[in-house]
Amino acid sequence: MTHTLVASQSREVVIGFDKPFCVIGERINPTGRKKLAAEMVEGNFETVRKDALEQVAAGATMLDVNAGVTAVDPNATEPALLVQTLQIVQDLVDVPLSIDSSVTAAIEAALKVAKGRPLVNSVTGEEEKLEAILPLIKKYDVPVVAISNDETGISMDPDVRFAVARKIVERAADHGIKSHDIVVDPLVMPIGALGDAGRQVFALVRRLREELKVNTTCGLSNISFGLPHRHGVNAAFIPMVIASGMTSAIMNPCRPQEMEAVRGANVLMGTDENCATWIMTYRDYAPAAPAAAAAASPGGGARPGRRGGRAARVGAAG
Amino acid sequence: MTHTLVASQSREVVIGFDKPFCVIGERINPTGRKKLAAEMVEGNFETVRKDALEQVAAGATMLDVNAGVTAVDPNATEPALLVQTLQIVQDLVDVPLSIDSSVTAAIEAALKVAKGRPLVNSVTGEEEKLEAILPLIKKYDVPVVAISNDETGISMDPDVRFAVARKIVERAADHGIKSHDIVVDPLVMPIGALGDAGRQVFALVRRLREELKVNTTCGLSNISFGLPHRHGVNAAFIPMVIASGMTSAIMNPCRPQEMEAVRGANVLMGTDENCATWIMTYRDYAPAAPAAAAAASPGGGARPGRRGGRAARVGAAG
Repeated sequence: MTHTLVASQSREVVIGFDKPFCVIGERINPTGRKKLAAEMVEGNFETVRKDALEQVAAGATMLDVNAGVTAVDPNATEPALLVQTLQIVQDLVDVPLSIDSSVTAAIEAALKVAKGRPLVNSVTGEEEKLEAILPLIKKYDVPVVAISNDETGISMDPDVRFAVARKIVERAADHGIKSHDIVVDPLVMPIGALGDAGRQVFALVRRLREELKVNTTCGLSNISFGLPHRHGVNAAFIPMVIASGMTSAIMNPCRPQEMEAVRGANVLMGTDENCATWIMTYRDYAPAAPAAAAAASPGGGARPGRRGGRAARVGAAG
Repeated sequence: MTHTLVASQSREVVIGFDKPFCVIGERINPTGRKKLAAEMVEGNFETVRKDALEQVAAGATMLDVNAGVTAVDPNATEPALLVQTLQIVQDLVDVPLSIDSSVTAAIEAALKVAKGRPLVNSVTGEEEKLEAILPLIKKYDVPVVAISNDETGISMDPDVRFAVARKIVERAADHGIKSHDIVVDPLVMPIGALGDAGRQVFALVRRLREELKVNTTCGLSNISFGLPHRHGVNAAFIPMVIASGMTSAIMNPCRPQEMEAVRGANVLMGTDENCATWIMTYRDYAPAAPAAAAAASPGGGARPGRRGGRAARVGAAG
């Protein structure tokens, strides 16, 4: 069984096929958030603190921490800012963190001060990246997200993406890094642009699990890029990738519909023991306006008698 | 590719791995609905008409029709009542119908008057059932739901349930019935009673599809039997069984959350061409109260830049 261990100073979390889905909170990231970027440059971390607390309260298993404020010279500015951000977050919450940067110096600076066992986000199949990041992964003995693209970009051919993932796993092995410390991101394409993006990723995740035996992750909301009611598409996608074998995702835990899909999928995969989390979370659930209409006939559409009767018998037998 | 053809007088529907999920509306069923049963016995079909129109309006692909009012002698009363109910429904809506009865005489009486190509619900692995139902399936050239239990009841062992399904397919073949006219119900157990009920059905559906190459169905809401917020469990289960290969379900189409899960899964399986149904259904979607809070940061949690940037590139490439 593949187990990827991540830890904060006080809490260990295992990512694995037999564990609840690992929700990596994506909010602490100034990319595309001008206001947050401006605050961080000014040394104002109120939004960072708020995002950290809100995401943990919403049920995030881990938090991604990114300080890419797209300065003129990221190599000069990002290391110190990422270190500062990481220290503020790890002093505030006790979940494991993901160090998210495209600047190698920033990743190493953060690794030096990170408590526990953080996840590094990320390495790709690009030679320069492999040579820059893998030695750090080995030196600091931490797991890493491996994004399956290389110098040629993102292939539309899932077999090529699989090959890139295998190459990263093999190159990591050359550095003495175990495959259970590689969390592969097979790359999720927007379904609105590529009609078989869903089937591609379901098949790819299954192969990564069965052939490479690695844990997997993705930038979840990419799937619904450009479509209306994205939460609904995301909430259908989550149970499907989990059923296909995906074990974590970088997503926004402050979305009730997406988190409900994660909790429901955990129940159905048998990783929410005795449905304890589900029952605790939803025992007093009151449907929102649209659902209320449907609540006219209670019991979630279940019927005693013929079909319901099966359930009853099964319940007794179980 | 396995295609099961069902039809009303004016409309054909194909159930298949490459088709949108087939939603079989379950509402027209007096089992456990005392008021409806009383109405039907009195010859009052207002609720039946209302349920037929509402389910079709809600997006049902087919409608299940059951007249089991549990009279003293169903064999004497159910055939005429089922015929009457079926005729009222097929004169009112143009979707294909499923003839649902445990009374053989009622099934045959309904088959005599049914227009198009109805689905018969159901046969089991019980000898008596096989010998009573399969000749009717052959005689009227219609598809049938095969429930994977037999004289010994419902096995907790999925291998036994698979074996029962295979036995039914083989016995049907002896009668000259093709496997594409057998829609297997692998039997869904309540996850609250049986922790691996989900993984069991996902694996079973995959085997039924890959080894027997049959379409599948289930009494969907059984999965959430006994749990709070059943709609949420059902809505997570639907994308997972669809990703596993299930092609239809007997369910309540008047549940917005469950139907949203079906539409989302169709988008992700690539059976909602160009996401046309999704876009048409949700282009003006306004989130309900609980989701509204999360809507603070728009765009479904997607970010331009690093991860969002991938999506953009991919979108361009797609």
